[in-house]
Amino acid sequence: MTVVTLTTDFGLTDPFAGIMKGVIARRAPGATIIDITHGIPPQDVLAGALVLEQALPYFPAGTVHVAVVDPGVGTERRPLCIELEDGFLVGPDNGLLSLAATRSAIRRIVHCTEEGLFLSPRSATFHGRDVFGPLAGALASGTAVAALGTEVGDMERLELPAALRDGAAIRGQVIYIDHFGNLVTNVREQMLAGLRGVRIGIRGARLGVSPSYAAVASGAPVAVVNSWGLLEIAVRDGSARERLGAEVGEPILVEPR
Amino acid sequence: MTVVTLTTDFGLTDPFAGIMKGVIARRAPGATIIDITHGIPPQDVLAGALVLEQALPYFPAGTVHVAVVDPGVGTERRPLCIELEDGFLVGPDNGLLSLAATRSAIRRIVHCTEEGLFLSPRSATFHGRDVFGPLAGALASGTAVAALGTEVGDMERLELPAALRDGAAIRGQVIYIDHFGNLVTNVREQMLAGLRGVRIGIRGARLGVSPSYAAVASGAPVAVVNSWGLLEIAVRDGSARERLGAEVGEPILVEPR
Amino acid sequence: MTVVTLTTDFGLTDPFAGIMKGVIARRAPGATIIDITHGIPPQDVLAGALVLEQALPYFPAGTVHVAVVDPGVGTERRPLCIELEDGFLVGPDNGLLSLAATRSAIRRIVHCTEEGLFLSPRSATFHGRDVFGPLAGALASGTAVAALGTEVGDMERLELPAALRDGAAIRGQVIYIDHFGNLVTNVREQMLAGLRGVRIGIRGARLGVSPSYAAVASGAPVAVVNSWGLLEIAVRDGSARERLGAEVGEPILVEPR
Repeated sequence: MTVVTLTTDFGLTDPFAGIMKGVIARRAPGATIIDITHGIPPQDVLAGALVLEQALPYFPAGTVHVAVVDPGVGTERRPLCIELEDGFLVGPDNGLLSLAATRSAIRRIVHCTEEGLFLSPRSATFHGRDVFGPLAGALASGTAVAALGTEVGDMERLELPAALRDGAAIRGQVIYIDHFGNLVTNVREQMLAGLRGVRIGIRGARLGVSPSYAAVASGAPVAVVNSWGLLEIAVRDGSARERLGAEVGEPILVEPR
Repeated sequence: MTVVTLTTDFGLTDPFAGIMKGVIARRAPGATIIDITHGIPPQDVLAGALVLEQALPYFPAGTVHVAVVDPGVGTERRPLCIELEDGFLVGPDNGLLSLAATRSAIRRIVHCTEEGLFLSPRSATFHGRDVFGPLAGALASGTAVAALGTEVGDMERLELPAALRDGAAIRGQVIYIDHFGNLVTNVREQMLAGLRGVRIGIRGARLGVSPSYAAVASGAPVAVVNSWGLLEIAVRDGSARERLGAEVGEPILVEPR
Repeated sequence: MTVVTLTTDFGLTDPFAGIMKGVIARRAPGATIIDITHGIPPQDVLAGALVLEQALPYFPAGTVHVAVVDPGVGTERRPLCIELEDGFLVGPDNGLLSLAATRSAIRRIVHCTEEGLFLSPRSATFHGRDVFGPLAGALASGTAVAALGTEVGDMERLELPAALRDGAAIRGQVIYIDHFGNLVTNVREQMLAGLRGVRIGIRGARLGVSPSYAAVASGAPVAVVNSWGLLEIAVRDGSARERLGAEVGEPILVEPR
């Protein structure tokens, strides 16, 4: 049974995610539908792209990942399907799929022009239901990517702000904050290699890197390498977002001790 | 595999929706369970009815839709099962099923009196678990509707407030607000036909109808026909609820230009 | 098809629950994954244990219940698998599984030491993905519990605060508050038996026990025996949490009339 995942900013209070699943279940009755999340902040394409990139490697080969964070819905931005070595990506051509597409070899990028596959009439506001759900359903029920439209050379690409070396130091920033209030930065584990014994500065706090959240006392800030291989600032049994007053974009400085 | 959908006001922080799914999985092991939403505002039967109506057409034929927004739980209000040409509706007889029941021909309305199907002991507070989940499971595993109880002639019916013509103008109101803050009104697309070139007034804003959210600048209000075929007021890349300070019930006036 | 349930404090805004499901779907492609909830308050092991205990009896025999509320992630606390007569529990050895384990006979408690089953590299922050998801997937695909590690004699156990008899009265407290604002207490239905005609005092309110929420006027407080067999204080069509200003731990006094 093919797995179809959903990553959107639809939230869960409205029926939008559920309706999209109905469309997929009609087109691909045997599919297993799994939510990655519907909690992407409204219209935050970069957050959606990052989440999809992090989730991709943990799903079965052949999974169809459909993502909809789509401020341009109803305009001429292209619906895309990307065939990867490991699965498929479906979504708008606004960069949302571009980080995940770096995680596996790209076989083919298709601009989905086969309007006969879409729901009709097609609304101007809900392409998750009318365009992307049907495309995911078609793939999950065995339609070949090439049958969805026209192969194209590239897509819109996003780049996460990169952490930069500044002499012996690293200048990074907070790129994602989870619901525990943990601050995820763009400083990769590999950048820290050879820097055992670093001092991390963020919002006035000064920290070393600890092996786990539990290495400090309850209520204290702690820096760890997290499950995405990124440097993360947390507060044990608390929220670093609240305790440090940090938001996405907050700078972080990593210095050798 | 039969699809069973859930529409409730249970929220997702408590285990109520999950427990209901366990009950359904016990009765109908092969069923595919899909959440339409558990985010109906607590005890807002009208919002639940509207959401179920909008979702119904997008699910496979034969789907069992169970809905629980049930301020009268534990009283004598009847548990109903409605057999439609396209599927089944299960829920309390308080109007919750009545809008969806207009979307497909009604074959049979049954007052579910077969208490042997319910969980025992039956609580006074959680009929999603003890009554409606078991009924949905019975239908999804092939039990005939007629075996659930006694056929009855009608059910409680709700009506959405209707938009009214006032000379050449239309007087409507906001009937639903989604999590993006978009204001969904009761003015149907068909009412606008022949009125190309209208002016819409809501909370002091004056708008034409645009083909998509992206037809205006970021931060500007915009009126579109939405995916439910209803006139909707949005703010591009923002929240119309916050920007215009509107809630459900807010009047809207549509005038020919 | 084996059912796998998830109970965590991961929330639904981040991709954590979705990623865990991907891991399970890879290991056990035919499994049916059902969320009990991801809304346990962050790091509230007792709330997680209570929710899992309440949900357990409603799932099919053989269900694999994986729970992750894990402030000690990355430390030496043990990953456990408990084989019950009715199914399996998987999670950290911090008491989270201990209340559910009282609901069915325990056959075997295993400290999961078979690291070859875990994802590699194993992060210090996300054992739902790297340890517990893989263990649940292994069980759901037929691996024997004994193959997961070393049988042990016991686990960490939590106890809910007990309601106490004080002469003819019962002194209890609020142990859980649901999203409707209903106050669930630790006073069990059986304690009330023989006390028909009781007076309940909480935050200045004085109530009898009613058969349903609808026994009182809209906006009035009401005491009922809830679906967990526990005394619950609600406000009809409203929130008892807000109306009475009560939180978890609030004392309640039950006196014979």
